[in-house]
Amino acid sequence: MTERQYLVGVDIGGTKIEAVLLDSSHAVVASHRVPARRGGDNVVADVVGLVREVAGERLGDVARVGMGTPGRVDSATGRIANVVNLDIDTLDLGPLVSERLGGVPVHVDNDVNAAAVGAARVLCGDDTAGTVVFLNFGTGLAAGVLVDGVLQHGYSGAAGEVGHVPVDPNRFDCPCGQQGCLETVCSGASVARLWPTADGRPPMPDLIGKARSGDADARRVLAMVTHAIGDTLQIVAQSVDPRLIIIGGGMAKTGAPLLEVILDELHGRETSCPFLKGLELGARLRLVPADAPLGAIGAAYAA
Amino acid sequence: MTERQYLVGVDIGGTKIEAVLLDSSHAVVASHRVPARRGGDNVVADVVGLVREVAGERLGDVARVGMGTPGRVDSATGRIANVVNLDIDTLDLGPLVSERLGGVPVHVDNDVNAAAVGAARVLCGDDTAGTVVFLNFGTGLAAGVLVDGVLQHGYSGAAGEVGHVPVDPNRFDCPCGQQGCLETVCSGASVARLWPTADGRPPMPDLIGKARSGDADARRVLAMVTHAIGDTLQIVAQSVDPRLIIIGGGMAKTGAPLLEVILDELHGRETSCPFLKGLELGARLRLVPADAPLGAIGAAYAA
Repeated sequence: MTERQYLVGVDIGGTKIEAVLLDSSHAVVASHRVPARRGGDNVVADVVGLVREVAGERLGDVARVGMGTPGRVDSATGRIANVVNLDIDTLDLGPLVSERLGGVPVHVDNDVNAAAVGAARVLCGDDTAGTVVFLNFGTGLAAGVLVDGVLQHGYSGAAGEVGHVPVDPNRFDCPCGQQGCLETVCSGASVARLWPTADGRPPMPDLIGKARSGDADARRVLAMVTHAIGDTLQIVAQSVDPRLIIIGGGMAKTGAPLLEVILDELHGRETSCPFLKGLELGARLRLVPADAPLGAIGAAYAA
Repeated sequence: MTERQYLVGVDIGGTKIEAVLLDSSHAVVASHRVPARRGGDNVVADVVGLVREVAGERLGDVARVGMGTPGRVDSATGRIANVVNLDIDTLDLGPLVSERLGGVPVHVDNDVNAAAVGAARVLCGDDTAGTVVFLNFGTGLAAGVLVDGVLQHGYSGAAGEVGHVPVDPNRFDCPCGQQGCLETVCSGASVARLWPTADGRPPMPDLIGKARSGDADARRVLAMVTHAIGDTLQIVAQSVDPRLIIIGGGMAKTGAPLLEVILDELHGRETSCPFLKGLELGARLRLVPADAPLGAIGAAYAA
């Protein structure tokens, strides 16, 4: 009997579900995605189908299946709750998927946590020593803090919850009940609200393009957004002081122009402050690679 | 030949130098302090004298001497620099003390770091598991982050430098070159500037007392200070999420009234935000014990 040597990772999102198969050297040897369907029964069926699809004949050699999902996650039991985008109130996702796959061990984690693990692995390989922070500029804003490759949850599960530090000078109301939370200005959803675009075009590239062409409104909004990003970066750098800060989430799809406006913001701050300049934050920034299945890869590692 | 089983810790301050002797169970078995004298030669002589004083006949059984000092510290070489309060430009403190004590191994560390280690030891004993943050409200504001009892310096030595996160709404100029650094409002020196007192009385107890008796100016200034403390606590809690946050530094000598106004600030913030309330930050706050020689104890442990 041979050792089970494959890992499967599944990233469950509001619009798609994606799976990867990793071999014993942790290379991605197969991947597949399907549109997400709402409802717990559909999610379980789609996840099981995807695992069978990417594993194929090697299904019997799969050691573990990891899943990353939005909503509240209890990793100890595999139960998820409050996944609004998928119409899930509560679902015993882990046990149901394991049962349908003949008892293979499964692990369920938060989707941002899984993306953080995946991004660090893809960017750093096996060189996981030290502290790496993944900043998820998605619908909200949250950080995943990894120490020596291991995700830190903190004493109360609040490690990395920088999106709800209420220090932004615009003092916008946040659904959390505070005012001025950083995510009211520099999350993907906030940029979409501050800079609405026609026909579903992503707002951040449009905002940066218009600001560069001299549009005064765009410059004003972009300055608000990059200021909040700058505060977020200083908070991360001057608390946990990581060797790398990885910019991820939907907003990262903006690509190089996003990195450029962040570096401009940092440069402006550094001009007046030798202490900040000495931290060399710009050299520690990385953008996640476009279109890599980071969430699925991270879910496999987290398993 | 018996094992050398004693540790000596020395806390070098701008007004006094204090030493403790720890036995093999890490109990303080002797302590002594002298007024600080300026100049490198005096500092070396005073440290050596204090070590001889606390060790007495057990000097030959001292395994290591640790020192905590202000200024810039190179722990690898034992050299210190820019200790303005003691008129020291550069001084090979570690090698000189070691030589005068017959070659006993010495270790030199930053005074805030030493106080952080000492405070965590005194408050937690040997139960050092998890993350503990020491907030030093001294001349400046900085945090010491301990993980499993070990001080974290971070990638660039900036771990815990929350005093220079520039998010305070008063936007005061900071000597570091930024505006709105948290330490421009909630450090000991800042409170002394915002609320000057006659005849050298400490400003924070006076400020709290006047605010409680209804003085409008005192209420306004106290609100600024506790707001900055609240932001500092949220930054710490929502980045590293420690199990304990220890309030130290000169401002901590205010005692229970300081803890009360901080809890009031947190309570106000929690009223509108279930997320923040769920973090139960108030239950994680501790004040350093009054007059315990934390810096000297921490220096001994750090050695």
